[in-house]
Amino acid sequence: MTVLHSTFTLERTYPVPPGQVFAAWADPATKARWFGAGEGHELDFRVGGRELTRGRTPDGKPLAAASTYHDIVRDERIVYTTTLTGGDVLATVSTTTVELVPDGEGTRLVLTEQDTFLDGAEEPAWREQGTGDWLAKLGKELAGGLSGPSGSAEG
Amino acid sequence: MTVLHSTFTLERTYPVPPGQVFAAWADPATKARWFGAGEGHELDFRVGGRELTRGRTPDGKPLAAASTYHDIVRDERIVYTTTLTGGDVLATVSTTTVELVPDGEGTRLVLTEQDTFLDGAEEPAWREQGTGDWLAKLGKELAGGLSGPSGSAEG
Repeated sequence: MTVLHSTFTLERTYPVPPGQVFAAWADPATKARWFGAGEGHELDFRVGGRELTRGRTPDGKPLAAASTYHDIVRDERIVYTTTLTGGDVLATVSTTTVELVPDGEGTRLVLTEQDTFLDGAEEPAWREQGTGDWLAKLGKELAGGLSGPSGSAEG
Repeated sequence: MTVLHSTFTLERTYPVPPGQVFAAWADPATKARWFGAGEGHELDFRVGGRELTRGRTPDGKPLAAASTYHDIVRDERIVYTTTLTGGDVLATVSTTTVELVPDGEGTRLVLTEQDTFLDGAEEPAWREQGTGDWLAKLGKELAGGLSGPSGSAEG
């Protein structure tokens, strides 16, 4: 049995104001587009609310991320904890803080994640890479690229 | 609005085997003796189970620690997340890993806590001090000192 603890911070700048970035986290349909893993996404975006995202590992095992929202400050901050389970095995427990800071016409997003990795089922480098990947998808969503040529009906 | 992230690790050695240390975390009556803050303690010690501890701040405000257990390996490991709320204000979100390692006749306990501190309501030094205080109380409990002269009926 092993446990590994690590923390990383990613910063990204998006060319839209904080309210628009916040809405992409708060609206279930929008979040599913850029964050959903393709096999189901449920989001109850309020303090105490839960989020469940289902996907597959590269070798086909079911993967489930279950989050609980602890702190939500509109247009400014979101804090949630997540457990990631692959097959029946708990891989990680994490706390993620997302801060949105006005930056000229746009928004600087600062994401800090504290991860507890259990028994080597997941690795810090994979997690940081994966998080960077979905922040890139968020960027495409905010540029209108994920909602299709006809635009989004959700907002 | 501020957010501060920090991680600390405390190590303690107790002169009893891991099974006895584990039991002091798992049994609600025993845990209440060394961990309970005096105004209520509820513990449902299983994966997905919750713990609620009520107390007071030094200036009399209600304090509530609510934990969820994510990983329990008998006699070896416990992982839980906790929110600490003072008055109506969320102060911290944390993940705590407790590892129990046989050490001769006794047990080495390694506690690692990853803390997210919101808006300065709590401070890293206080948290580490407080955690050290209750690990000292655990030591007294394991030495029979908190269960009274007639000993504990719970075990």
